[in-house]
Parts: sequence; structure tokens; C-alpha cells
Amino acid sequence: MALIVQKYGGTSVGDLERIANVARRVKAARDAGNGVVVVVSAMSGETDRLLQMAKAISAAPNPRELDVLLSTGEQVTIALLSMMLAQQDCPARSYTGAQVHILTDSAFSKARILGIDHRRVCQDLKQGQVVVVAGFQGVDEGGNITTLGRGGSDTTAVALAAALDADECQIYTDVDGVYTTDPRIVPEARRLPVVTYEEMLELASLGAKVLQIRSVEFASKYRVRLRVLSTFAPGEGTLITSEDEAVEQALISGIAFSRDEAKLTILDVPDHPGIAHQILGPIADGNIEVDMIIQNVGEDGNTDFTFTIHRNDYDRAEGILRETSRQLGAREVLGDKRIVKISLVGVGMRSHAGIASKMFGALAKEGINIQMISTSEIKISVVVDEKYLELGVRALHEAFGLEQKDEGH
Amino acid sequence: MALIVQKYGGTSVGDLERIANVARRVKAARDAGNGVVVVVSAMSGETDRLLQMAKAISAAPNPRELDVLLSTGEQVTIALLSMMLAQQDCPARSYTGAQVHILTDSAFSKARILGIDHRRVCQDLKQGQVVVVAGFQGVDEGGNITTLGRGGSDTTAVALAAALDADECQIYTDVDGVYTTDPRIVPEARRLPVVTYEEMLELASLGAKVLQIRSVEFASKYRVRLRVLSTFAPGEGTLITSEDEAVEQALISGIAFSRDEAKLTILDVPDHPGIAHQILGPIADGNIEVDMIIQNVGEDGNTDFTFTIHRNDYDRAEGILRETSRQLGAREVLGDKRIVKISLVGVGMRSHAGIASKMFGALAKEGINIQMISTSEIKISVVVDEKYLELGVRALHEAFGLEQKDEGH
Repeated sequence: MALIVQKYGGTSVGDLERIANVARRVKAARDAGNGVVVVVSAMSGETDRLLQMAKAISAAPNPRELDVLLSTGEQVTIALLSMMLAQQDCPARSYTGAQVHILTDSAFSKARILGIDHRRVCQDLKQGQVVVVAGFQGVDEGGNITTLGRGGSDTTAVALAAALDADECQIYTDVDGVYTTDPRIVPEARRLPVVTYEEMLELASLGAKVLQIRSVEFASKYRVRLRVLSTFAPGEGTLITSEDEAVEQALISGIAFSRDEAKLTILDVPDHPGIAHQILGPIADGNIEVDMIIQNVGEDGNTDFTFTIHRNDYDRAEGILRETSRQLGAREVLGDKRIVKISLVGVGMRSHAGIASKMFGALAKEGINIQMISTSEIKISVVVDEKYLELGVRALHEAFGLEQKDEGH
Repeated sequence: MALIVQKYGGTSVGDLERIANVARRVKAARDAGNGVVVVVSAMSGETDRLLQMAKAISAAPNPRELDVLLSTGEQVTIALLSMMLAQQDCPARSYTGAQVHILTDSAFSKARILGIDHRRVCQDLKQGQVVVVAGFQGVDEGGNITTLGRGGSDTTAVALAAALDADECQIYTDVDGVYTTDPRIVPEARRLPVVTYEEMLELASLGAKVLQIRSVEFASKYRVRLRVLSTFAPGEGTLITSEDEAVEQALISGIAFSRDEAKLTILDVPDHPGIAHQILGPIADGNIEVDMIIQNVGEDGNTDFTFTIHRNDYDRAEGILRETSRQLGAREVLGDKRIVKISLVGVGMRSHAGIASKMFGALAKEGINIQMISTSEIKISVVVDEKYLELGVRALHEAFGLEQKDEGH
């Protein structure tokens, strides 16, 4: 008997008809001889409805009470799904985060899971019950209700799969897997049968938002086999696993991109040790995340310093940088909000040279000017003018032959 | 410092504006130097909304899961009220039934409270916090969520008041107290400043449905001073307390009535010991509650036997009685659904003779024929044709001078 953890998001349980559909899938997995634990989110729209009431009371509602409020969303879903399963002659028992004792720290609205007491779950599974657990929520040592933040239901599912040593953690969503790139831009984009945790992290953080990053990190840490599937369509989805299992992996997995980029440059700063910290310290103090950083040293002892940030933070970051510029006696601050980032992702590039030059060549062939470059072990990112986004993604998708059928599957 | 438990029903917390109103009342009680524990119901309409979803899944939803579902209603309210209190600079902490450990048996949807662990509540009160508790819900020994059944929030409030030895348990509702009778029938009906638990039980069960009967029983058992007040209007409401405290009590407190009555008569049953049990046993087995019972012994060794039931049970009861009639060889079964019950209630009648004859005289004067009579220590009930309901209630209200100002208050 395999043990499977299935997670269904808000859209998958959006109304009673969809909950009935989920129940049929769960029952099918159980009837096939598996032990099944199901993690569910709030019905789509419910969390927003609750949040709206809280916001009508206060712009910054009491965080402890906000978690008490929001956690009711998943509690409604676990009850409805368990009833629906019982109605389909599939015995089921629901548990809130507190009941299954998903112990977290006390950081309301963004709590981290510390441990799970899985004894009750195991007992129920032994008795042939399907166990339905509320995602997104837990309880701290003081017995206070906590939530894990938006998308936290994925993390709940992975944490349960790790605690129960499940054979697979299946994340059901409204897409049928992870693609080589966004099919809205490249119609030939292909579903990936397998990606590694590391690749998924790069693909997720760069725009292919299928899974919450934290849940992938969690899965990677505890070696939980993750599978992304569609609730509404048949198919094998995409398996996210460790590199040794993903042997049939292609050289390049996919092309991610991000439209929400902006860059800031400070020109002719007197170059001395610690200058990077003097420039970026105030930005960090303003709680603004910096992504790519480039520093060019000039001949006159001055330097140019460029970094990218989220477009939403641009105005604030620019204000801070102008103040820094004044203090440091720099010549000028330049900014650009019309940029995007395109990234090539693949574990294969570790062992293959020439990937970068092939990438730059493909972009050059289309006349696309590269403004910034950043590389990691399994990723090469470039910053280009936003008008080149679609052209660049298509050029790279073709250059690396991503539309071709994966021979291994 | 007095300790007060306040309970607000669904109408009182029906929307955010009303919750703000409740918060102001709670804050005022605390600012006056009291320790305040607040028990709230689900926002009006919410329980029905949840129930509707459950009923769409199954005519008889799984009872354990139904309680998980319904208990979210109060959880939403405790969070919103606590936020609202914080927003009004009144520190507050919310607790679900499980969190404050309202231990119940495992009878889902109609659980009974076994105990309350009030340590956290006391701790919070000492720190000057208002404690907001979800009504209607608890947790069984296995950690399963239970509900106390509709109206159970009153019981939660009284149980908390008993456990905390509170000075008063205030039930806020949409009426401003207990009246001598229904003001829609007798415009001169007067609010009672004080009634005893016993009187309240008779008044409540007979139609003046201000408080859940079980909560009054509970209050009586643990000598909790109960006060019924309006959330929307000022006033002292009605204090419900023990007889020794209600010294200024009038002879007669009020006139209750019930429209939902029906009666059944079985004629000429052979009279022998055990005949009552033979007739009523099958009715009880059908889970039908019998109220008044009359047996007249005839001269021929036969007897006539009459009893009243809830009008909803009439058809079922009649079917059962016809079967019994056949088995016992009775002459006939007669029924009447067009009857009502009018009751005179007052602890004073214990020590005063002549109340019954005064009552019958007042009804006779209006030409109202009495079909059945039943008496208890503090109540005289008569069954009459339903067309006489309003006339009868008005005649009795006037005959006993209930419209007059209570001198004691």
C-alpha cells in the first residue's frame, strides 16, 4: 500500500460541484489501494471575503485575531469534503491544523512549521479512513491558532508527507504541470515530465508560479517526491524530485522570466572598500529586496553600481538611492522601469560548457541587447528591454530545442 | 471589581456596524471597572448559510463533520469582535470552544457541557484583557469539535459564568426583557423586572422564547444570576434569579401560550391497570413528546383517554394511536388540531388559593369553553379552541391586573 498526500487548492474546491469532483479523485486513489491524506485550501474567494471584513475593521488588524479569522476558511473546506466523501461511501475524518497538531512558531500570518504529531493520522489511515487536513494553518506552543501565509497549504502538504514518510505528495492545481516556458508566449511549450527541486526553485521564483517556493525547499530538504497535477484534466503532471531520480533530465529544463523588474544605477561613486554596503545598506533597511547586482570599476578611481529590484519598490528605492548619492558625492542616479529578466534553467548546464555563449548568440541574432547578466550553477539570467520579452523567450526556446519531445518519456 | 459574562446573539453581531456597537458596550462595561467575558454567536444568517451547503451534500450530513463546519460561524465572530475591541483600544483575546477547553460529551450537534478549564480566562482577566469566547461549541475528550445545538451560546455563557463564579450573566438579545405576555397580543403587556428560574422555565417552554431552556436550567442549578437585555435599546432588562432574591415578586408573573398544540382522544378503551402505558408507550417509541394527559373513567369499566402533542407530530401520532386502538378494541379515535394552550405562571400561586377559580371565571365570562386543564405548582394551563387564543390571553392579563406597574420597582 502506497501512502499519498494530495493537496487541492482554492480553485479546485471552489464550489460544491468541484468538491464532489475532488472527492471522486480521492476515493479513486483510496480504492486503488492507497492510504490517502488530503490537504485543502479555503474555497476560492473565501479568504478574500474574510480579509475584507478584517480590513473594514482596521487597516492593520490584530495579527493573532486575523489568523483566528482566516483559519475558518480551510475549516469549512475540510468539513464539506469529508461530508462529501462520506456521501460517496468513502470514510473520512477532518482535522484542523490545531487538531492534527501542526506545531508552528508564533509568527502570526507567516508562521513556520516546527513539527507534526502524526499519531492520529496514522491511526485513522490504519482504519482505512481518508484523513482530510486543513492547509495553511497550525497552532503554537501556547495553543494559539497560526497561519502559514498565502499558499501555505502546499507547505502543509509537504510537511505532512515528510512526517508520514509518504510515497508521493501530489499538488493539484489548475495547470497540468510545469512547462518549458509560459505557453501563452510560446505555444510550442512542452510539459516537463520531471524537474529537480533546484530547477523548480529557479522556475518558481522566476515566474512559473505553480508551487509555493517554501514548499519546494521543504520537499528538497526532506526528499519528498512532489508531483504537480491538474484537478480538472487527466495526465501525469510533473514530478519534482532529487537529481539522482531525475536521470532522464534534459540539458535545459525551461525558460523563466519576470516582468516585474526595475533597475537603478548610481554613477561615478568614489570607489573604496565597503562602498557596496554603503549603497545597498539603506536599501535593505527599507526592506527592499535586491536581485542582480553589477559593479564596474572605472579608471578614475570611481565606479558605477547597478542593481535590480521589484518594480513595485522602484519609487521608494530611487528616493533612498538619491539620498545615498548626495551623501557619497556620486555624479548621478539613473533608473529604468522598462526592463525584464529572462532566465535559462537546467541542471545540465553544470556539466556542459558553451550554454551561455549559445544563449547570448541566440539573443544577438534577434538584435536583442543584453543589459545585465547574472549566472548561478543551474541558471543564466539576462536583463533586457521589456519590449524584447516575447521575442527573447521564443528565440531561446527554439535555440535549445525545448519544443522537442522528451525521448525519455 | 465585578465579573460579568455578556452574551450577544446572532442578530446583535449581524454585521460589522453591529459588532462595533457590541464592542462599545463591552468596552463600557470594562471601563466601568468590571472584568468582562463575552460569548458570541455566529453572525445572523451564517449558520444557515453553512447548513445549506451541508444539506446540498447530504440530507443527513456526517454529524462530526457538520459540527466542524458550523463551529466556524462563531469563530469568525470572535475574531472580528476581538479586532474591533483592539481597534477601540480595549485589549481582547479570542478563544474557540476547544481553546478554552469547554469539554463536552461526544453527542455531535447536541453535546452537553461537562466542564470548563477556566485557567486561561482567569489569567487574561487578571491582565485586564477582555476574553471573547465562541458560543455554541466545545470539544470532546478525543479532541473532536462538538456543538451544543441551536441556541447553545446561552448555555456557553451560563456555564462560563458558573465556572468563573461571575456576578452576573447578561444575555443580550433583540428584546428588552421578559414580558407579562406577548405585546403583539396585549399591547399593555409589561416588562418584568425580576422572575424566578422556575417561572422563566415555564414562560420559555410555553412560547416566550427569549432564552434557551437548557441555559435557564443550568443557571438555576448553579445559581447564576441571569439578566436578559436588549443590545439595541437601553434599560435594565429582566433579572432571572432564585426565589429568595426575587422577593418583590408579584403573585402572577405572566401568561404564556402555545399555538402549536394538537390533541388526540381514544374512546371507550377497556380500563385495566397499565392501560395508560399501553396507549402512550408506542407514542413514546415514535419519539413523540406528550404534554398534557387526561383520563376519565366511565361507569361501564371503559375509559376515555386524551393527550396533547406538538401539531407537527399529529399525523404520525394519529396513525400510531389508530393501530393501538385496533389492538385494544377501543371504540374510536378522535383528533383536533385546532387547539391552543394558555398558561398562567407565577410562584405566588403556591401560597394563594383561588387563582384557578379566578382564571376559569375570567374565561367563562368571555364564553370560552375549557377543553382540558393541567396544573403544576407554579402554573395552570388550559386547552381551548384556537379561535379563543387572543381573547383568552387578554381576558386573563386584565383579570390578574398584569398591566399595572409593579410597585416593587
